[in-house]
Amino acid sequence: MYTLGELAKQLDLVLTGNARTPVSGLASLTEAGPDELSFLSSEVHLPRLSSTRAAAVILHPEHAVDCPVNKLLAEDPYLAFARASRLFDRAPVGASGVHPGAWVAADASVHPQAAVGAGAVVEAGAVVAERAVLGAGVYLGHDAHVGADSRLYANAVVYHNVRIGKRCRVHAQAVLGADGFGFARGPGGWEKIHQLGGLRIGDDVEIGAGTTIDRGTLEDTVIEDGVIIDNLVQVAHNCRIGRGTAIAGCSGIAGSSIIGADCTLAGGTGVVGHIEICDNVHITGMTMVTRSITEPGSYSSGTPMTATREWKRSAVRFSQLDEMHRRLVSLERLLLDADSREQQDP
Amino acid sequence: MYTLGELAKQLDLVLTGNARTPVSGLASLTEAGPDELSFLSSEVHLPRLSSTRAAAVILHPEHAVDCPVNKLLAEDPYLAFARASRLFDRAPVGASGVHPGAWVAADASVHPQAAVGAGAVVEAGAVVAERAVLGAGVYLGHDAHVGADSRLYANAVVYHNVRIGKRCRVHAQAVLGADGFGFARGPGGWEKIHQLGGLRIGDDVEIGAGTTIDRGTLEDTVIEDGVIIDNLVQVAHNCRIGRGTAIAGCSGIAGSSIIGADCTLAGGTGVVGHIEICDNVHITGMTMVTRSITEPGSYSSGTPMTATREWKRSAVRFSQLDEMHRRLVSLERLLLDADSREQQDP
Amino acid sequence: MYTLGELAKQLDLVLTGNARTPVSGLASLTEAGPDELSFLSSEVHLPRLSSTRAAAVILHPEHAVDCPVNKLLAEDPYLAFARASRLFDRAPVGASGVHPGAWVAADASVHPQAAVGAGAVVEAGAVVAERAVLGAGVYLGHDAHVGADSRLYANAVVYHNVRIGKRCRVHAQAVLGADGFGFARGPGGWEKIHQLGGLRIGDDVEIGAGTTIDRGTLEDTVIEDGVIIDNLVQVAHNCRIGRGTAIAGCSGIAGSSIIGADCTLAGGTGVVGHIEICDNVHITGMTMVTRSITEPGSYSSGTPMTATREWKRSAVRFSQLDEMHRRLVSLERLLLDADSREQQDP
Repeated sequence: MYTLGELAKQLDLVLTGNARTPVSGLASLTEAGPDELSFLSSEVHLPRLSSTRAAAVILHPEHAVDCPVNKLLAEDPYLAFARASRLFDRAPVGASGVHPGAWVAADASVHPQAAVGAGAVVEAGAVVAERAVLGAGVYLGHDAHVGADSRLYANAVVYHNVRIGKRCRVHAQAVLGADGFGFARGPGGWEKIHQLGGLRIGDDVEIGAGTTIDRGTLEDTVIEDGVIIDNLVQVAHNCRIGRGTAIAGCSGIAGSSIIGADCTLAGGTGVVGHIEICDNVHITGMTMVTRSITEPGSYSSGTPMTATREWKRSAVRFSQLDEMHRRLVSLERLLLDADSREQQDP
Repeated sequence: MYTLGELAKQLDLVLTGNARTPVSGLASLTEAGPDELSFLSSEVHLPRLSSTRAAAVILHPEHAVDCPVNKLLAEDPYLAFARASRLFDRAPVGASGVHPGAWVAADASVHPQAAVGAGAVVEAGAVVAERAVLGAGVYLGHDAHVGADSRLYANAVVYHNVRIGKRCRVHAQAVLGADGFGFARGPGGWEKIHQLGGLRIGDDVEIGAGTTIDRGTLEDTVIEDGVIIDNLVQVAHNCRIGRGTAIAGCSGIAGSSIIGADCTLAGGTGVVGHIEICDNVHITGMTMVTRSITEPGSYSSGTPMTATREWKRSAVRFSQLDEMHRRLVSLERLLLDADSREQQDP
Repeated sequence: MYTLGELAKQLDLVLTGNARTPVSGLASLTEAGPDELSFLSSEVHLPRLSSTRAAAVILHPEHAVDCPVNKLLAEDPYLAFARASRLFDRAPVGASGVHPGAWVAADASVHPQAAVGAGAVVEAGAVVAERAVLGAGVYLGHDAHVGADSRLYANAVVYHNVRIGKRCRVHAQAVLGADGFGFARGPGGWEKIHQLGGLRIGDDVEIGAGTTIDRGTLEDTVIEDGVIIDNLVQVAHNCRIGRGTAIAGCSGIAGSSIIGADCTLAGGTGVVGHIEICDNVHITGMTMVTRSITEPGSYSSGTPMTATREWKRSAVRFSQLDEMHRRLVSLERLLLDADSREQQDP
């Protein structure tokens, strides 16, 4: 529970209204009750502002006049809302220390202010830094490092020699540093290329539930600082994901591809292997990125959704596109011939 | 082991044949031996009926004349087969009670008829109702609830405050209630929007292995009663999935989208965020749903598979489609001009 | 640490150079230091050969003349590199024996030379053969078998009655033998078809992190010998994957489909249910395989990536393709009419 005055101070925002108003939580404009803080981050929601019952609304000064309740003025209301969300986060944090049901190797190093949950396993040579939290059932392999203030949620698995930076969040079931998918064809079938490289994850990285990031073949797979990755994303061996890039759910990045800084990959994106994407590239959902991208901008592939009956007709014609093109060219020739004949013999 | 007479009674079907025939299991028409029950649910399999050696066949009365063995007559043979499958399910069920290798917080509530497997962790305030089963290594977060007769398979993870209804099945490695993928751009990079909402799962819901369903940002993500979700599906924060909807494997639903009741999403479907799909919508495989759908029916996107050599030609032309269209329009104009000239000057 | 002479002998390669040169690891041509072995497997990397500082390079005899350092001559340098990678793999292997933090049922059978990690659970009737390794937190269900020299990484889950062959690797979070997605529509909603079949996995199979392979409905799902499957792949119930087939990450195979031997499915491939793919078929990335394939070769679907602005124009025209085709046909008729008229009335 905060007062509006405290919130204004902590969020470094200008308050217009009653500083003593108590605030117990965050809610949307329509759902907020008289002790909840709301926010207006997009003009789309402007029609809902006049009827809000919120204790206060975080909004841009230009909308202050339309707000019937207390106001917290922000140049970037969405960012201010993000910061407010931290204040109201009541997710439980495990007690520090090593749970009696955890197994920590004798020569592993767990900081006294770190926490290791029940059923977690910390192998020989592993390091868990100050205030890091390993959830229940987490596996931390030999010589793996978890930086200060990082948190691994229940049952996440970290293979040997993986380095995780500071202030990272790794959600449940994520797998960091499993073998890359490397095989050579031998006379009797596939022969495994043992994956001798590692995986380095920078600071302030968030990794979603069930996401898998493989170790490198010879050198390290690298996730740079500030990268955010959603759930069920696959990052293959030898990739490098640049600083601040965001990858949405169900995307897959094939081996040895390099993605620049400040890119966004929408959900279901696929990136083929051995290509390079420059900084500030945005990929729309379910796009198949089949070649390197050297110009910042937005890129897409796929076809639009329609009723299945109509789609089937378009899909059939897609297979005939080259033939359609040839027929078009033939017609053009015929017409130009006809035209020229007409012009010659009017 | 049942007799055919017992099966007829338990499945509420009319038996034509010897009620004392023993039945030890279920099998397809071609594989069934003389002590196994089979079924005919589609005319596709009709040619296999005459040579079946099954103890009996569940089928529609109209096919009884073609059946060389005992018959169990059903208006809906596939449904009757589903019900029979329950009778022959010999999957082991863990003993009830808390395994000595489980960690249950002092103030968690585990019903005496519930089961908690080895290595499972039940946090403070969590509730496990009567006959619910938490498999080995399951993590049940603070204040999470599991309803009566629900079963969580090995290593499934449930974050704090998630509500799971009655008679649900949650398969191994599923993650319920991890943080939604919410971030705001700040001056130094992404700033996390703490996910303060929860996740509510209705009754009779099945959730596949490795599937992830995120908690809401402010309000709850909601999975309504009777929803069935396959493996490796991602449901993002703030979604609502309507009653009885089925989502097949590898699908992804982006944030804040609402899917109606009795929909089916085939495998690999992607749904963008912030849209609404009405009841009784069917999406074919790997479709990208890019807009709201207000009419029931079947919807699709994508292109058909062909030999890569032919596909490359179509794919190149796809990128030239707008130009092809312009050339087509030009030809039409030329021809109409020519036509009108001809008509004027015959 | 090896000498070049030892490596030549172990890899059965001809050495040209100093047999006493010490080699401590593997690296790429550009990264290798004077105690590291490198390799040249593709002409693409030929320009980097002349400046390598490697202790030696594995290469084809035809490139020996261009190599400034010691040479290990191989007919298939990539395969020789794969074999060398095994020699330098320093991934830790758990001590054999059952960890005191594991739970092994009284009547399970764990070979004295097998290893079971902390927090692993081995249910009644399960069998763990010689030199097999169950990582920390692995769940092995009732009557499941793990063959000799197979390794399951941390937190992998194996349901009851699943058979895993020899020399397999199953990475973290993989789920083997969960229920297939089988339901019948009943009057009150979906009714579960209990999945009574099992899952059989051959020898020398690799299964990636987070991958899910379901058990069969009545008969077994089958993964044949030498199959390699990447991360986050879904294989549905009743499928059969043929010997030596490779499936890359994020692919999904729907139920009852049969894939032949020596096929390759690139990343993000989707295969619909109830179809059959013959041997030696190659599917390019993100293809939707919508029908059976009876001819070996390469198959594709999808559209190429372009800038979003251009893509939108093509996408709009895709929906008009059938209309475009009709207009093309009309023009052709008009022109042929005009032509024939011209020919009649010159």
